Amino acid sequence: MTPHLLSVDSLSRERVEHLFQVARQVEPIAQRRQVTRVLEGAVLGNLFFEASTRTRVSFNTAFCRLGGSVCDTTGFTFSSMAKGESLYDTSRVMSGYVDAIVMRHPEQGSVSEFAQATNVPVINGGDGPGEHPSQALLDLYTIDKEFTRLGKSLAGAHLLLTGDLKYGRTVHSLIKLLSLFDPLRITLVSPPGLEMPDHVVDLAVSRGHRIERRHNLVSDFHDLDVIYTTRIQKERFTEEMTESFTGLTRDFIVDRSFLDRHCARDTIVMHPLPRDSRSEANDLDPDLNGDPRLAIFRQTDNGIPIRMAIFATLLGVEHLIDKERRDVRWFVPHKIGVDDADF
Amino acid sequence: MTPHLLSVDSLSRERVEHLFQVARQVEPIAQRRQVTRVLEGAVLGNLFFEASTRTRVSFNTAFCRLGGSVCDTTGFTFSSMAKGESLYDTSRVMSGYVDAIVMRHPEQGSVSEFAQATNVPVINGGDGPGEHPSQALLDLYTIDKEFTRLGKSLAGAHLLLTGDLKYGRTVHSLIKLLSLFDPLRITLVSPPGLEMPDHVVDLAVSRGHRIERRHNLVSDFHDLDVIYTTRIQKERFTEEMTESFTGLTRDFIVDRSFLDRHCARDTIVMHPLPRDSRSEANDLDPDLNGDPRLAIFRQTDNGIPIRMAIFATLLGVEHLIDKERRDVRWFVPHKIGVDDADF
Amino acid sequence: MTPHLLSVDSLSRERVEHLFQVARQVEPIAQRRQVTRVLEGAVLGNLFFEASTRTRVSFNTAFCRLGGSVCDTTGFTFSSMAKGESLYDTSRVMSGYVDAIVMRHPEQGSVSEFAQATNVPVINGGDGPGEHPSQALLDLYTIDKEFTRLGKSLAGAHLLLTGDLKYGRTVHSLIKLLSLFDPLRITLVSPPGLEMPDHVVDLAVSRGHRIERRHNLVSDFHDLDVIYTTRIQKERFTEEMTESFTGLTRDFIVDRSFLDRHCARDTIVMHPLPRDSRSEANDLDPDLNGDPRLAIFRQTDNGIPIRMAIFATLLGVEHLIDKERRDVRWFVPHKIGVDDADF
Repeated sequence: MTPHLLSVDSLSRERVEHLFQVARQVEPIAQRRQVTRVLEGAVLGNLFFEASTRTRVSFNTAFCRLGGSVCDTTGFTFSSMAKGESLYDTSRVMSGYVDAIVMRHPEQGSVSEFAQATNVPVINGGDGPGEHPSQALLDLYTIDKEFTRLGKSLAGAHLLLTGDLKYGRTVHSLIKLLSLFDPLRITLVSPPGLEMPDHVVDLAVSRGHRIERRHNLVSDFHDLDVIYTTRIQKERFTEEMTESFTGLTRDFIVDRSFLDRHCARDTIVMHPLPRDSRSEANDLDPDLNGDPRLAIFRQTDNGIPIRMAIFATLLGVEHLIDKERRDVRWFVPHKIGVDDADF
Repeated sequence: MTPHLLSVDSLSRERVEHLFQVARQVEPIAQRRQVTRVLEGAVLGNLFFEASTRTRVSFNTAFCRLGGSVCDTTGFTFSSMAKGESLYDTSRVMSGYVDAIVMRHPEQGSVSEFAQATNVPVINGGDGPGEHPSQALLDLYTIDKEFTRLGKSLAGAHLLLTGDLKYGRTVHSLIKLLSLFDPLRITLVSPPGLEMPDHVVDLAVSRGHRIERRHNLVSDFHDLDVIYTTRIQKERFTEEMTESFTGLTRDFIVDRSFLDRHCARDTIVMHPLPRDSRSEANDLDPDLNGDPRLAIFRQTDNGIPIRMAIFATLLGVEHLIDKERRDVRWFVPHKIGVDDADF
Repeated sequence: MTPHLLSVDSLSRERVEHLFQVARQVEPIAQRRQVTRVLEGAVLGNLFFEASTRTRVSFNTAFCRLGGSVCDTTGFTFSSMAKGESLYDTSRVMSGYVDAIVMRHPEQGSVSEFAQATNVPVINGGDGPGEHPSQALLDLYTIDKEFTRLGKSLAGAHLLLTGDLKYGRTVHSLIKLLSLFDPLRITLVSPPGLEMPDHVVDLAVSRGHRIERRHNLVSDFHDLDVIYTTRIQKERFTEEMTESFTGLTRDFIVDRSFLDRHCARDTIVMHPLPRDSRSEANDLDPDLNGDPRLAIFRQTDNGIPIRMAIFATLLGVEHLIDKERRDVRWFVPHKIGVDDADF
């Protein structure tokens, strides 16, 4: 059976740890200190049925850094699928062309349906409200890497997740992944009506995690290790909610003042991005830009080694990388992959 | 003079046989058992003035598998040509950038006009109702390959072409190509009003082929070797035709029951794709999925070696391939290029 | 500090001369007589927030010819920036993925803003009415190369710039670049209301150039070395201007008859392209196609070595190229990069 990466539900602790080990192994390549060509001759089909430039570029680059070539498609629906072609046909045809497929699609379940007809590995790059497993993996990898740098351990750590915990698929997937590891303390802060679904909370509790739910950020979090903020999309609000939360905008925003007054000195701040930089933003204030506690760009940087590890393991080349790497020869700014991190 | 591939009309039997010989030679690369880099450093301009994801990806991948790089453009008209630039200027400029050009354009004749100003080989990837020579080549290559597998020979074979034979450019081009080879028996089945044009039939007859025309599929075809189905686009119908063919939808559909009752045990089924998978479909029923007689995915798979052969011969590197190939090193599912074919 | 190429204003004569020297060095690669892989493993982010197929393909190809890979994005605004992401965030995220960025954007100043947050070199591929420095460089490189071929020298040459000199950013940038070199004679011909801005003229005069302004082309230019024509966009006209210039269309057009009657035998004709090929065109007549004095396609060809030189110097690999190049092995039409030039 062809291996895929469709959902975090299919990941075991062993597979996650193997992915992280390969990700650490390819870090010098992701940070452009070395290059490799282990995937020379391989072609990735990067099929984006909805726009997501950042995710598309990240997968594209990760494949290129292993030596492969990429064939991008966006707005695919305007072509053969518009003429009534089934996902089955599209999938089977594409698998005759390329060696691996990343697919993003607005409809939940479509990527799994697509994967059933294909002969090559398929990676879910996001299927609407469904899954986006590489995002959850890079989030956990970031926590692991930051903790290593700070001399902390994951066991017993305190994480705060805030924002829209009901519709934000990244926080659901992150908690599912965390559930595979040693018990943590997790505080969930969201407006009423946007709470984390019970089945996700129950899963975490059943695995021994301590979960606390709150409706505001006004509190002391002096033992906090990680704040994971997400955007609240106002279009998610019912009319009732809009009325009760007129002051919402600043109630859930994380900024420098909040960090300085309520958090530990080495609390790191994460966000799945994009964050909203307009005045009505409610997630993460730009006044933290340049602050070493802001880990959001180290987090996106980590998308490259994680996605390289996903490709390398699905295509079975991870054992070749150590033998086939050489120093980069072009000019590389020294801060790539490690900037803002020296606090 | 720069060599191009603009039309099947310009192909001789010798050139077709040479293309097929190179296609057979590159099969191990197309099936990812080997890789080559003979086109390392070359750049393909893949210019799609109308969307056709499948064709674009197929050309793109074929060029990559020879070691080249690809520069894609789609919706080109929104840029410099929208400012009044002529095809002549666009063509000449592009030929200063890239080493070969694949062009698809909604207007018949536009690709030939484009080719006149360029210094590099141009391949017609479809010009509206005009030509799409690589599709005809992969169709004939598929028949040849399937026949070899089944121990049959092309001479004297019986082919059935069905669907819209008036507007479907792929069936016109296929018959023109077949006309270069030994005489066949060809049965044409279409609704009245969508018959194959006389000039195409006359050409085939003048070359010794036996042509029979019919208006329905209800008949015995127990000596049939190939069914080539195409989609009937209802938007092609006149009002009169719509009235006379209310029951049309199922009249021309090829499905498992038709094959079992009326055809030979090893009749293969082809289709240029995409096929329509919606309820009103009239071409090829999904109940044949998984049936070894269904050759449509082996047919699209064959697009890769054929397009690799087109590039290799136009750029004059076919003699290098045997010397410069090595075994692939990443994991490849064993079924690629040969699946569903073991009957 | 990371080096960028944002504006011609930041270029010194030394840097321009170094770029030209590298461009001459890579000519055999741009003309497909040789290949190199010095940028193997590097990834370019080609970010086009507005369509410009020609410029995008030119940068893309130049990077590929140095051995790198390209990740293209167009219509970027429809994705994360549409959700309110700042240029700062987009920039910083992208610089974690790729090794160099070309950016085109409709708003003046946006590329500079973008460059401030990034860790990798950024090249301005055009920011609306602002800058497009690689175009100015390839224009000057073309003049230099044509003069060398004709045995002329830049010092004391006579250039004619015609068309829309007010809004055409390419002519502004070209004059700024020329100002770094030995004094010239420059004649500016435009309709009243579309004259070259004073600050550009003043800069050239302050550096010793002789500038003459005119409102028509009906004159003798028998000592002319270069005509640089640009398109007059009628949408730029005020109502008043439209009334006074009913006969405008042909007043500023350069055609074979004008060249034969009023210019020197070896006057070369340039244009930033695209030129308008429709009947209302007012810039450059197609009757010059095939005439060796028409340098417009040699000019676009020169975009490749210039952009290769820009990448090679920004990424610091120019010293590797001489050591790592080999002869091309595929078929290359002999005219590439030098056609139409033998007069």
